[in-house]
Parts: sequence; structure tokens; C-alpha cells
Amino acid sequence: SHMDPQSGGGRNKFMEFPYVSDPHRDLMVELVSMVETRLGSYLLPSNLPPDVQYYQNQNGTAHASLHIRSGLKSSTIDFILGSWIHFELPSGGALNITSLSAYLNTSTDAPNFLIELIRSSPTSLVLILDLPPRKDLVLHPEYLHTFYEDSQLDKQRQLLEKIPEVRPYFSSSLYIRCVVSPTAILVSIDTEAGRTDRMEEIIQDHVSPIAKEVIGMWLDRCACGEREVGESERAYLGKRDQVIKRKTIEIDLGSNLPRLFGEEVAARVLGAIQRKLDKV
Amino acid sequence: SHMDPQSGGGRNKFMEFPYVSDPHRDLMVELVSMVETRLGSYLLPSNLPPDVQYYQNQNGTAHASLHIRSGLKSSTIDFILGSWIHFELPSGGALNITSLSAYLNTSTDAPNFLIELIRSSPTSLVLILDLPPRKDLVLHPEYLHTFYEDSQLDKQRQLLEKIPEVRPYFSSSLYIRCVVSPTAILVSIDTEAGRTDRMEEIIQDHVSPIAKEVIGMWLDRCACGEREVGESERAYLGKRDQVIKRKTIEIDLGSNLPRLFGEEVAARVLGAIQRKLDKV
Repeated sequence: SHMDPQSGGGRNKFMEFPYVSDPHRDLMVELVSMVETRLGSYLLPSNLPPDVQYYQNQNGTAHASLHIRSGLKSSTIDFILGSWIHFELPSGGALNITSLSAYLNTSTDAPNFLIELIRSSPTSLVLILDLPPRKDLVLHPEYLHTFYEDSQLDKQRQLLEKIPEVRPYFSSSLYIRCVVSPTAILVSIDTEAGRTDRMEEIIQDHVSPIAKEVIGMWLDRCACGEREVGESERAYLGKRDQVIKRKTIEIDLGSNLPRLFGEEVAARVLGAIQRKLDKV
Repeated sequence: SHMDPQSGGGRNKFMEFPYVSDPHRDLMVELVSMVETRLGSYLLPSNLPPDVQYYQNQNGTAHASLHIRSGLKSSTIDFILGSWIHFELPSGGALNITSLSAYLNTSTDAPNFLIELIRSSPTSLVLILDLPPRKDLVLHPEYLHTFYEDSQLDKQRQLLEKIPEVRPYFSSSLYIRCVVSPTAILVSIDTEAGRTDRMEEIIQDHVSPIAKEVIGMWLDRCACGEREVGESERAYLGKRDQVIKRKTIEIDLGSNLPRLFGEEVAARVLGAIQRKLDKV
């Protein structure tokens, strides 16, 4: 809940999602709450500096919040990372990005969780929703079977695909295309000009139930599932996880943060994230 | 050329592609010829049994040809495999599948080549065209950069994506989705009812030049490119290649051949392929 003393004061600002629509905010708040309710006792309080929990650019056209909670060493959780970014476009309108990712540690080889909503206008949404695998699926068909075939994860992608406004989305980053699973939901949704109501309806009636189904699956089968991992496999997972985290942050934030918030703010925020990732 | 004594008699039957349209046949013949012209001196003659080079089902509604040439031990080529299948549909019409794949051996870690055209009606085509990677791209961003970013392979995918009849295609096999690269062309092309001419135009003017560009890139950068591969990496490549070959054949042919040609023919053909793969 919002009163959870473990969560730290910055959580409230993060959980406000002040610039997005009600259905968009409701979805993000529900997902963060599902994770923190189920895994809360395994998560350390957020202890990011206040000027990283919430930051803005000099002329006040860009605002953002960051929420990171590390898992206890005895848990399966490496850390969870939530964020929102609001950026007023020079052309009018605004870009809003909200995301939640959860990384597991090397006590398990189960997949991570990732959701990102990129709203570049009221009638346009890019959705990324996936359980990114932690092993090379080509070499490990049994892992593919357990987490992706047996779980029938592709059904969720197929459900969304049926909506007429939904189109497959190809990330401009080839690395991001590689990181996701074969059941990843990577779609762009565009409603007719002026039909913001239809976009909100799609988020509420379709995106939201699918995202909750996927995160529920992740909580049950991945974060709380039992997996045996040997010594040499731990080393492999540790190395692969490290490359993913480094590359993903480089691609997601490395060029965007300096562009939106200036070099000084970007260095502060990236430094804080980097320290979190290296320490864990 | 068709007179090449190295190629064996079965090559002629294979190269006939007797059931597909002229542009479709021209494309396949050109691709096989490009590979055999460039790599011919490194390839052993096809020595499949005649009843595997060409086979049919009992009531003559299904016909197929298979063409396999192994590479010399001193080359970078493991083997090339071409095939066509023609199957008269009970509903009328026919299903035609033509494919060419080229697998490299462990003296190099460069990507393989794959093209498959699945024609389930005169106005419907599924195209798979890719250089499937031989390493986990998540763990090896430098490999991704060399073969996929630096080569600008994605431009070919983007060219095809612009054609109005082209839609992204999702293989029903999650494993096949994993095996392909992030620049893979996986599309279904559907022209209006009766517009077979438009389909042939798309194959001739768009699919064909793109496929030739991609196979040219593969010949230059992969089959004939210089790569250094250490001892331990060879073992890794060998294992990963083996899993891919086993799984791909199981998915592609394991259930289709018995269904289309009956158990006896299927066992003969699959056995011959298996012996080729195991021997190399």
C-alpha cells in the first residue's frame, strides 16, 4: 500500500504517474502493486537519492521519476525498476513513457519481466510486454518449452493481435529485438485522429487484462517458481544478465537522458542506476 | 550449370521446380546457381539415393525432390540443402514449398543461410529469408554488430515491409521464431482474389532482388569471410548447430512428411537426411 514504510517517500511520487491518462495510470499502479504485494517482504526499501527519485530538466519541459528496489540476497529477486518520463514536445503535445521491469538473480534461471508503454500522442501507443529469457533458447529447447510453450504465453499475444488497431512493432534497436522472447508482445496501437476514448478503452479492456495475466504468470512461475541452478550455470547466468543490463540501459537511457534532461542530470541518474546494478 | 558432372543426375530433377510459376522457379534456380557457382569447388556431388532425390506418395497427389551437397572438410561449408514439395489439396488447388538452406561448419562462426517460399494458393505466399545466427546474440553484441547492424541487413526487411500486400508472419513454432535473426524476413503476402499476376510481379520485382542481395551478402561475408574460431568455441558451435539441425528437421519434416507421403516414404527420406547430418 502507499503507506508501506519500507517503500520510502519517493515511491509516492513515482506511483502518482501524474502525466498519463486514468486507464494508463491504473494499469501501472496495479502492476507495481501486484509485484510489491507479492514480493514486498523480499524487497529492500528504495534508497535512491531524492534528486534521482524525481528529476526534471532546466526549463521544466521534462519530468521523470525512478523507483528501484533491490531484492534480499536470500530471495530470487535481483531488483525491480519502475520509471516514468514526461517530455513536452516542441511541436506541442507530449511524450510519456512508463515502464516496470523485474530482474531475477542467479539463484534461478527463470525469465525476467518487462513492460513499457510509450505514448507519443493521445492516439498512439507502443507496448512492449514480455518475459525476457535468461538463456539462449536455441540451445535450450526444454527451457523454451517450460516457460513459453507450456505456459501458453503466445495466447496473450494472439488476443491482442486480433484488435484492428494493433500492428506488430519492430524496435529500431536490433539488440532489443534479440533480448525479448518469441512470445513477446511488441505492438504499436494507433486509433483514428481524435479517438482518444478508443485508445483508453483499448488500454483498459485489452492491454490491462493481458498485462496482469502475464505478470501473474511471471510471479507464479518465475519469481516464486522453484528452479535448480548449478555452480557453472550461475556463472553463465551472471555474465549474460550483466551484458543485458548494461546494453539495455545504454540503449534505453544512454542517449535519451542527455537529450531530454541535459548532461548533468543524465550523469547523476545514470550513475545512480549503474551503482545499483553493480552492487547487486 | 545443369551439365556439371559433380552435381549428379538428381540435380536436374531438383532444378526443374516443375510445379511453381516462372518467377518463383527463376528465383530458386538463380539462388541455387549463385551458391553452386561460387562454392561449387568446395562441394561434394549429391549422392542421395534416387528415391530420396525424387519421391512421391502412393496415389500420386504429393511429389517432392531433395538435393543435398556436403562441403569439403577443408571448406567452411557443412552442407547445402535444397528441396521442393508439391501437394494437391483435397479442396482443390495445391500447396508448393521450395527451400534452400546452407549450413557452415565449425571452422567459422558466421551465420547460415535460409530461404523458404510456402505457396498455399496462387495469391498467397509465406516467405522466410534469413541469415540465422550461430551464437547467442544477447551474449555477443559484437557478433550482432558485425553481421546484422554493420551489414545493414534490416534495410532489406524494411524494403519489403513497404509493399501494401506484405504483413509480418509469426511461425506457429516458437522454436523457429528463436532460430532466426532480428533482421529475419518473415512475411505473408496476400494479393486480391484472382490477382495471381500481382503475386508474380511481387516475387519478380521485390522478393527476387531482395533474396539475391541477402544471399550475395551471405556468400561474401559468411561463406567466404575470414573468422577466427578457438577450440572451445568450436565445441560450442558444434553443439548449438547440432541442436538447431535436429530441432529444425523435426519441426519442418517430422510431422509433415508422414502426413503428406505416408510413413514408409517419410522414414526413407528422414533417414537419408539424418545420415547426412550425422556423418558431416
